[in-house]
Amino acid sequence: MNESPIGVFDSGVGGLTVLKALAAELPHERFVYLGDTARLPYGTKSPDTVARYAVQAAEALLEYGVKCLVIACNTASSVGLRAIREHIEGIPVVGVIEPGAEAACAASKSGHIAVIATEGTVRGGAYQEAILRLREHARVVAQPTQLFVALAEEGLHEGPIAENVARHYLWPIFQNNRADTSTARNAVIPTEPPDADVAQRPDTLVLGCTHFPMLARAIRTAVGPHIRIVDSAATTAKSVRELLTRQHLSRPAGAGATRFLATDSVERFARIGSRFLARPIDPAEVELIDL
Amino acid sequence: MNESPIGVFDSGVGGLTVLKALAAELPHERFVYLGDTARLPYGTKSPDTVARYAVQAAEALLEYGVKCLVIACNTASSVGLRAIREHIEGIPVVGVIEPGAEAACAASKSGHIAVIATEGTVRGGAYQEAILRLREHARVVAQPTQLFVALAEEGLHEGPIAENVARHYLWPIFQNNRADTSTARNAVIPTEPPDADVAQRPDTLVLGCTHFPMLARAIRTAVGPHIRIVDSAATTAKSVRELLTRQHLSRPAGAGATRFLATDSVERFARIGSRFLARPIDPAEVELIDL
Repeated sequence: MNESPIGVFDSGVGGLTVLKALAAELPHERFVYLGDTARLPYGTKSPDTVARYAVQAAEALLEYGVKCLVIACNTASSVGLRAIREHIEGIPVVGVIEPGAEAACAASKSGHIAVIATEGTVRGGAYQEAILRLREHARVVAQPTQLFVALAEEGLHEGPIAENVARHYLWPIFQNNRADTSTARNAVIPTEPPDADVAQRPDTLVLGCTHFPMLARAIRTAVGPHIRIVDSAATTAKSVRELLTRQHLSRPAGAGATRFLATDSVERFARIGSRFLARPIDPAEVELIDL
Repeated sequence: MNESPIGVFDSGVGGLTVLKALAAELPHERFVYLGDTARLPYGTKSPDTVARYAVQAAEALLEYGVKCLVIACNTASSVGLRAIREHIEGIPVVGVIEPGAEAACAASKSGHIAVIATEGTVRGGAYQEAILRLREHARVVAQPTQLFVALAEEGLHEGPIAENVARHYLWPIFQNNRADTSTARNAVIPTEPPDADVAQRPDTLVLGCTHFPMLARAIRTAVGPHIRIVDSAATTAKSVRELLTRQHLSRPAGAGATRFLATDSVERFARIGSRFLARPIDPAEVELIDL
């Protein structure tokens, strides 16, 4: 069992930011990464649909003999984790929401935390609940930032467009404490930072989508230097390491390796995935599967 | 048969811009509109996947007794029209590429035409081929403008972000005649129009995705007042009217009506679709179906 791979699943290439953290934390482990690229994005789909897709993906990974399953997708973790745990027996299943909430609570001094995520993750409310379970008096604002996904996939994660979009979504939160951006929609975006009451704004921002670490620089430009920005990749990797140790499932030695599976174009997966994994992926490394 | 509805199909809500033109051109007709929202977007998927999905959607519409099928999606028309025509017998099937190419050839004086579309449509080359069939010496440049889809769905189709994105994609084409935007990526976007050689740039721009008419104002701002902008909605509607007349299939009188079908969240379809159709859609008007 210790020699078995770890299954990692995402709707597409975003989860490769989590795989990168896992491979750094667990250099001896083997991974099977499945990107359900034919049916992405999950972030705008209904909870029932996402849960159904997530269970199918988990079942597909089981066939590769995985010893543990990491749901490296916030939307699938948010609305599909329970369904996966009900359907998949005998191996531990780890999502990214709990580790992300832990990282946020550890980082925040004031307990006032902003979460940005896909529509599906925000609507599901899993981050808000997970943070409040860990820190009863926390104050959480959540904002869907759907365009960040398209910017990251399009390779426009840096530069003036990404910065404008980041300001569009984030200034209303860090300016007036509310997640309502309706007044900012289509307004001219000022180039000066907002005149905010520092005590009234969140001190921590959770990147609640595995795509968003790609936009870290644009997001930092929009929120300024004093906000703590956390994502769940590193804490998820730490959780998985602890879990494997606890259950005596670690692979003690040997070289790490990754097998990639995608449900649509292996060329596109390799091309866009290379940016997310921060190392080249050859299309020949990616296997096309049907779910 | 004349009383039967017309089936209209798109991957999501974009095709509602075509439905709007159809309803204006054919006020007595009834329509069944199917948006495959659970599996959108088609624009980034491989040809085989899109063709398979398009055939499934066409078969679903057949069950509603449609007398004619309109593929109101450029990507599905580009790579799925042949497969649909092979699978669906007995009723005419109309795509949006041929009408769009006709509109472009009619509008262009110089024969130098730019096409913007999704990745799938551009890669498939159907627009380029259709234009060259109609006008042998035309010169066609095609550019994927994937972010326009996300902007339209996010309601950010106007304003400074949309204008920046439009400049990012379109200035390289209208400045130097090439569809290569790599040099413009992540560069600072100048606010002055480019110093272009007018004779060397396209005189016509085809909006080769049913989402893009939503961004017409931002696109116009980017290309300036002298470029002809055409989309396939009006010409497709005209083609369908001529086809129905020719085949004696028109509904001669009576009030028009539309039935909406979606494969995911009816609330999201109604909310975002209302903008595309330019009239409110009640979620109760939308039926959830599974393909």
